[in-house]
Amino acid sequence: MTSEAITVLGLGNLGRALAEAFLREGHPVTVWNRSATKASELKVPGAVVAGTAAEAVAASGLVIVAVLDHQAAQQVLSGVDVRGRALVNITSGTPDEARELADWAAANGAEYLHGAVYAVPQTIGTDASSIIYSGSSAVHERWQKQLALLGKVTFLGADAGRASGYDVAILAGMYGLIGGFLHAAALARANGIKTTELTPMLLSWLTDLHPALSTFAAEIDGESYDNAESSLAMNQTGLGMLIRAAAAQGVPFAALDSFKELVDQQVDAGRGEESLARAVESLGVVSHRFAG
Amino acid sequence: MTSEAITVLGLGNLGRALAEAFLREGHPVTVWNRSATKASELKVPGAVVAGTAAEAVAASGLVIVAVLDHQAAQQVLSGVDVRGRALVNITSGTPDEARELADWAAANGAEYLHGAVYAVPQTIGTDASSIIYSGSSAVHERWQKQLALLGKVTFLGADAGRASGYDVAILAGMYGLIGGFLHAAALARANGIKTTELTPMLLSWLTDLHPALSTFAAEIDGESYDNAESSLAMNQTGLGMLIRAAAAQGVPFAALDSFKELVDQQVDAGRGEESLARAVESLGVVSHRFAG
Ligand SMILES: NC(=O)c1ccc[n+]([C@@H]2O[C@H](COP(=O)([O-])OP(=O)(O)OC[C@H]3O[C@@H](n4cnc5c(N)ncnc54)[C@H](OP(=O)(O)O)[C@@H]3O)[C@@H](O)[C@H]2O)c1
Ligand SMILES: NC(=O)c1ccc[n+]([C@@H]2O[C@H](COP(=O)([O-])OP(=O)(O)OC[C@H]3O[C@@H](n4cnc5c(N)ncnc54)[C@H](OP(=O)(O)O)[C@@H]3O)[C@@H](O)[C@H]2O)c1
Repeated sequence: MTSEAITVLGLGNLGRALAEAFLREGHPVTVWNRSATKASELKVPGAVVAGTAAEAVAASGLVIVAVLDHQAAQQVLSGVDVRGRALVNITSGTPDEARELADWAAANGAEYLHGAVYAVPQTIGTDASSIIYSGSSAVHERWQKQLALLGKVTFLGADAGRASGYDVAILAGMYGLIGGFLHAAALARANGIKTTELTPMLLSWLTDLHPALSTFAAEIDGESYDNAESSLAMNQTGLGMLIRAAAAQGVPFAALDSFKELVDQQVDAGRGEESLARAVESLGVVSHRFAG
Repeated sequence: MTSEAITVLGLGNLGRALAEAFLREGHPVTVWNRSATKASELKVPGAVVAGTAAEAVAASGLVIVAVLDHQAAQQVLSGVDVRGRALVNITSGTPDEARELADWAAANGAEYLHGAVYAVPQTIGTDASSIIYSGSSAVHERWQKQLALLGKVTFLGADAGRASGYDVAILAGMYGLIGGFLHAAALARANGIKTTELTPMLLSWLTDLHPALSTFAAEIDGESYDNAESSLAMNQTGLGMLIRAAAAQGVPFAALDSFKELVDQQVDAGRGEESLARAVESLGVVSHRFAG
């Protein structure tokens, strides 16, 4: 592999880990961070510290952006000459924000690839790191080997917003899991049960549910909910019991109330014997809105 | 194994599966259901159908109760002579409801064991079925072999409410996971992504999060949140972005708002750099409330 120059803009926890992964493999790396002190925290020596974002961008063909949020990414790039650059932005954001930056890049002579990272800084560059990308397939192809140094690469096509579309969906699932876990911990605590005692049993049961979620997925795509293994009516009863239990123990559980409302809406419409997956229809998104 | 007589009260989806599991192993089984028709749906022949719950209870030393909810269980048992019987109630309910029935049983000369079932009717009696019990250890010991016919047995001690304490916590975790999944599906749909395309990636990432949840569990039990791999501040930003993305796509997401409030409360108290697990403290349950 020839050692192409790479620039990393943003040396937060993730940016530092990205810069270090490239340095370890012998790439000339130029870094820039808003507060200058962070460059000194790099654990792998050899990075060139640029005085401005513009200088950093001028130094390399591949420019990785890893800052707090979309606004920060806009501020960093604003006014910078990005002509001919491959911009890879792994800053979390909405699909529309990614598309906005892709349009800006196109208008300013750069190619744009957006990434969503499934890793913590400690696992960047290991098998436990996975990054999904969408946007410029030219950037994906030209810089594939370099991107692979960060983690497993999945390319999802030319729509720069698609990776973020997956990402917001995956984050929604993640915060559901974590929110449910924290409420489980609070309910356990209210009953004198240690969370460390509960967790192995809980995680094993949650894993057992994965096949049911795959069944739900097929029901949702097919908009066909007739063959219920887990009916809306049964879950309405279960949710009611759980809300009663949480209230009796003084654990506030607004998330559960709002979930039950989605279920109630379907049961009220006479769908009680259909699959719990139908509750997704209470969220009001018309299927295939963007299709075709 | 001698084939002791067993009674099953309630022939809903679960009760039927329990009765069939005992019949398959050659136990004389007496069944009763509020609506008489359900007895005819048993797939394994040989059950004696009792005309009243009292007759059914009179027929066997071991009596399994599997009805819709706590109220139904109370109605079924009300006025029935349960003296000398081992009552095993696997009807879902709160810890206090289980304790109430245990007290009633004690006052009426019966032993009481409460169970919480982790299985669907189809998996009763297979390795995929697991039931946690608490209450009478005498019942657990005397009927261990029969209970093992239904699924893996875990006994959690003499407090009849303890199994339900685990159960409500596990259900909270389950509904968090499922609620998050349905929102993920709605967000995917809003972005023209099929839920069946999303799900393998989502489930793989959720599984990758399990070690982090185990770390959270230790932090929660130790009430020590200093060593944050995933900080409250970072998740506050992430939740804010996700709420913005959901709103932009018209997906209502009340669960996320209420989760963010738990996080905000801790960040406002100056804990932003501490672990996300600290959000459990926003739920107001004093640790070890029932301990000692
Ligand atoms: N850490 C993870 O595990 C992880 C995983 C997946 C995705 N992500 C995403 O990756 C991105 C970076 O995460 P991180 O963990 O590295 O965050 P972080 O540690 O909080 O670092 C944030 C970085 O953004 C910079 N920044 C903030 N506002 C800025 C502005 N207006 N102009 C210029 N720079 C600005 C900060 O510079 P200063 O030093 O000057 O404040 C800092 O370098 C985020 O979008 C995050 O959601 C992170
Ligand atoms: N199915 C599962 O996968 C599963 C898993 C774990 C736990 N559980 C729990 O197990 C229990 C039973 O579940 P299930 O799936 O069998 O429910 P189900 O199919 O809905 O059956 C409910 C049963 O309760 C009876 N019932 C309702 N109200 C009654 C009353 N007032 N008096 C007497 N009987 C009454 C019904 O009798 P009728 O026929 O007369 O209506 C029916 O036999 C529930 O507490 C559930 O939460 C179920």
